[in-house]
Amino acid sequence: MNYPNGKKAAHSQISQSSYSNRGMSLEEDINLTNQYYLDAGRAVIHKKPTPVQIVKVDYPKRSAAVIKEAYFKQASTTDYNGLYRGKYIDFEAKETKNKTSFPLINIHDHQITHMEQVVKHGGICFLIMRFSSHNETYLLEAEKLFPYWYDKLKGGKQSIPYETIKEEGYIVPFQFHKRVDYLAIIDSLYF
Amino acid sequence: MNYPNGKKAAHSQISQSSYSNRGMSLEEDINLTNQYYLDAGRAVIHKKPTPVQIVKVDYPKRSAAVIKEAYFKQASTTDYNGLYRGKYIDFEAKETKNKTSFPLINIHDHQITHMEQVVKHGGICFLIMRFSSHNETYLLEAEKLFPYWYDKLKGGKQSIPYETIKEEGYIVPFQFHKRVDYLAIIDSLYF
Repeated sequence: MNYPNGKKAAHSQISQSSYSNRGMSLEEDINLTNQYYLDAGRAVIHKKPTPVQIVKVDYPKRSAAVIKEAYFKQASTTDYNGLYRGKYIDFEAKETKNKTSFPLINIHDHQITHMEQVVKHGGICFLIMRFSSHNETYLLEAEKLFPYWYDKLKGGKQSIPYETIKEEGYIVPFQFHKRVDYLAIIDSLYF
Repeated sequence: MNYPNGKKAAHSQISQSSYSNRGMSLEEDINLTNQYYLDAGRAVIHKKPTPVQIVKVDYPKRSAAVIKEAYFKQASTTDYNGLYRGKYIDFEAKETKNKTSFPLINIHDHQITHMEQVVKHGGICFLIMRFSSHNETYLLEAEKLFPYWYDKLKGGKQSIPYETIKEEGYIVPFQFHKRVDYLAIIDSLYF
């Protein structure tokens, strides 16, 4: 995968300063990108809130309700969905520090089930993966992810090799206001 | 609005027993309906999790992380979205005990903004309203909601009269497994 001249340098530079000491840079980058798309009137795509099981809430006088006990729940769908050029769009985003492969352990069974349902009903569905050590972000269509998932379930590899993702996926361009410009890929793949 | 023969009796009967002493019956009914649609392979529509601002989390040894302090955040979108017959679907659901009108106070400015964006980008967008005192649930297209909202902003009525909703909206059929069978209305309006 080649970057247009100059892009790579800019990417690495900005990334190294802004990604350092941050746990959720891919999520932050996607949120900023989605906000840019929204402001530009290009797409309506949002991250779903983190699912939480609320157990105890206090209602102090004259101030906001305080959740005093709650637990994280496993998401039953992917994290992002929305609307682009009249089409339903749905994706999950994951980051890895691994240099040679993308571990499948962070994707849950019911997320794959959800992705299969989306594909079956005619939606656009994919995975965004960031290899933070390579400073590269890839988009892989859900249809290409499924075979690796089923191979894993049958006792095969627990990850997808980096080289395979380089071949089967698409590198997502980085731009200052569109830090993960995945719609550039979607345009060329689906429209 | 007329029910097919017999439907009304069945609806009232089941509703009176199962809606009593419940605060979130419309939400529960929609969640059950969405699950039915999903299991039947008809649509992929989910409620988004309640948005929560997490402030403090404890990580006790050998057990799950406990959220010790968090606050409810205002939703920036509607509560439900998904995919039906290849189309993006998006809606908000509200219940009122008011007999003569539907108060607009429960709908937020940014939810209207979101609905406008969805309509502009070619999605199917609407409001589901339940008049619990009448035991009736209506679907109103977003396009029909907007004029009332802007009238309210300009100092007009703070609610939509019940009679107007009866005229401009569509009564949502009740069925045992599809307690709020809104796709029946969507089929006739958009397909």
